[in-house]
Amino acid sequence: MEREKALELVKKQLTEHRYQHTLGVMETAITLAAQYGVDEKKAEEAAIFHDYAKFRPKDEMRGIIVSQGFPEDLLAYNSELWHAPVGAYLVEKEAGITDQEVLDAIRYHTSGRPGMTLLEKVIYLADYIEPGRHFPGVDEVREMAKVSLDQALIKAVQNTILFLMKKNQPVYPETFYTYNYLVTKLEA
Amino acid sequence: MEREKALELVKKQLTEHRYQHTLGVMETAITLAAQYGVDEKKAEEAAIFHDYAKFRPKDEMRGIIVSQGFPEDLLAYNSELWHAPVGAYLVEKEAGITDQEVLDAIRYHTSGRPGMTLLEKVIYLADYIEPGRHFPGVDEVREMAKVSLDQALIKAVQNTILFLMKKNQPVYPETFYTYNYLVTKLEA
Repeated sequence: MEREKALELVKKQLTEHRYQHTLGVMETAITLAAQYGVDEKKAEEAAIFHDYAKFRPKDEMRGIIVSQGFPEDLLAYNSELWHAPVGAYLVEKEAGITDQEVLDAIRYHTSGRPGMTLLEKVIYLADYIEPGRHFPGVDEVREMAKVSLDQALIKAVQNTILFLMKKNQPVYPETFYTYNYLVTKLEA
Repeated sequence: MEREKALELVKKQLTEHRYQHTLGVMETAITLAAQYGVDEKKAEEAAIFHDYAKFRPKDEMRGIIVSQGFPEDLLAYNSELWHAPVGAYLVEKEAGITDQEVLDAIRYHTSGRPGMTLLEKVIYLADYIEPGRHFPGVDEVREMAKVSLDQALIKAVQNTILFLMKKNQPVYPETFYTYNYLVTKLEA
């Protein structure tokens, strides 16, 4: 899909703040894609649509997770996780995106997954380090992203787990499996 | 089993340093048991035997894990985890301990588990905070243990996950499930 058309579709779904974030993710994803040999057009499309479902009502998201047979353990964890798989579903249904790699990059952009593709890594990381993000540790991950996609991703996932642990909040198992997968692969 | 007899059996299995650690765990476990309404005699016995298998050859431990049908994913993680289930097995076989609560406290003293009993919590925590332990954060957990067994345990498990993440090492899933279980229970 043409960038302008995609942005137009997404803009209607988001707040202005979240739309600006999306533009940041798009620019960052394209840069990372070029750097790590990923299809830039796919990175652009996945980035533009990654938060498509962010502001859907919780009830709608819950209904889609159940009716589409998505992992129901999602419902026991933070609802911040829901918009990723729901977004992949809605983007196909409503925006006509059919590229499975793009849809998976949207689906796993919050949790990650063991065996994640380069495109999935690029979107996960771009979402974490885009210029509009300001939180402790983000600059360190930005610097790492210039050198190693995997090292930067490990640090981002570790920070996410740490952030939740500091608040005594549960960590979605897929996030933790992603951490184990990445460090085990790095060691090998 | 009488304390002196149990200590005599265990002393033969351990280095002097690890035996002194065991005495520290025993004293701490008895104190925690009294404080949190756990059978002190069971706490004493589990504490004395908790590291029984610590110095068994890796090949022997690996063989027992496979032959006894213990979770084989243990073998893919740090061998430091192996002595706990192997210890529970050997303590029954060689020392004649048959109390399942005591054996489970030995079995889960390194990983923890969702649904862990009070006795299991006492042994896990006593192992972490006994007076011979010196590492960053241990005093904070000691203070918490005076107020809340669960809060202290959560902090100990968090510290363990943090310690592994700082070294980019994988975390045994059971440890992570234990964390999720404890914080979810706390919230409820």
